[in-house]
Amino acid sequence: MAKKGILIVVSGFSGAGKGTIMKQLLQQYPEHYALSISATTRKPRTGETDGVEYFFRTREQFEEMIAKGELIEYAQYVENYYGTPQAYVNDQLAAGKDVILEIEIQGALKVKEKFPQTLLMFVSAPSAEELKNRLVGRGTEDMDTIRARLGRAVEESQGIENYDYIVINDMLEKCVEEIHAIVSSEHSRVSRNINFIQQIREELSGFSKGE
Amino acid sequence: MAKKGILIVVSGFSGAGKGTIMKQLLQQYPEHYALSISATTRKPRTGETDGVEYFFRTREQFEEMIAKGELIEYAQYVENYYGTPQAYVNDQLAAGKDVILEIEIQGALKVKEKFPQTLLMFVSAPSAEELKNRLVGRGTEDMDTIRARLGRAVEESQGIENYDYIVINDMLEKCVEEIHAIVSSEHSRVSRNINFIQQIREELSGFSKGE
Repeated sequence: MAKKGILIVVSGFSGAGKGTIMKQLLQQYPEHYALSISATTRKPRTGETDGVEYFFRTREQFEEMIAKGELIEYAQYVENYYGTPQAYVNDQLAAGKDVILEIEIQGALKVKEKFPQTLLMFVSAPSAEELKNRLVGRGTEDMDTIRARLGRAVEESQGIENYDYIVINDMLEKCVEEIHAIVSSEHSRVSRNINFIQQIREELSGFSKGE
Repeated sequence: MAKKGILIVVSGFSGAGKGTIMKQLLQQYPEHYALSISATTRKPRTGETDGVEYFFRTREQFEEMIAKGELIEYAQYVENYYGTPQAYVNDQLAAGKDVILEIEIQGALKVKEKFPQTLLMFVSAPSAEELKNRLVGRGTEDMDTIRARLGRAVEESQGIENYDYIVINDMLEKCVEEIHAIVSSEHSRVSRNINFIQQIREELSGFSKGE
């Protein structure tokens, strides 16, 4: 079966370790995956390169991309736009790579609506207790901020039922393997192999008539 | 997350090697899988034991099982009934085993209708050509019989679009691993983890209120 890439949206509770998992997944399977690169209007920080961490664009350029429908999804945080350019994603998918988008639940659901074949994956800690401990353990935030984050996690969790898979980040290695197995398995979904099925049916039909 | 077993229906083209794959899968992962045992009214052959190859029942006993709704599905071939007793399947699922039913497409779709969480898997050869060659290669059937089998395969293939996964049996080892990865991944489906999601949501909600 021809392998066409799958668009994968990964979201997760803050503190679930999503970033580390994705980094590890890409390091372990560089030939399988590509990370989508976002466009943003925020200024590059020291060491950041256009086309690597982000596509850096002016506000005018970004709004032109919106107008031309060149973004899969976009959102505005504080003063800046962040969005996913479709061209880069399409190129990677056509090359047979599974493309990972790290975005929040609201954006994820918009992407799924536009591209129903998108795979939605949610990363969670093994328990709420563990998630709380990880946030507390960072030691960088006071209890009020942590409570606000936990409150935000509750809001986010309202959308999980619309996701396809939930993976638990207990052991990093195990979690990475689990995600890779899920994506590999998804390539065998009937809905992703309709062409193959139609072809084998036509050929069998020919043979059964003695062709 | 608590692991509850998944009911898996496996169908496939004759000549696709389904039987060999299932045997290998059960040998490799005896702690993961159980094969459903069918009930039948046909007489045991030499070496067959009640409760191992089949549950051997009289016609009266079988019809009583039908009447009492004790069968997940059943069908009549030639003179005999064949069916899947629900009790055995339920016991294995409750014990956390993934239970494999080897049945045809029509039976498979009935099971899925009754139990929407059932996983439907279809086993195919890599191509129609290969499937034909495997049937010819057996050397036990004349061309007319093979054409009839291929015609039957075309009919069967009409239902594949209702299946969840299609796996290609090219290399036995690879195919067994693929099936095991698919089933393992299915345990991470959101729809199979609703209790976990609700629990973590409630706990997070408590924490965010300072409980």
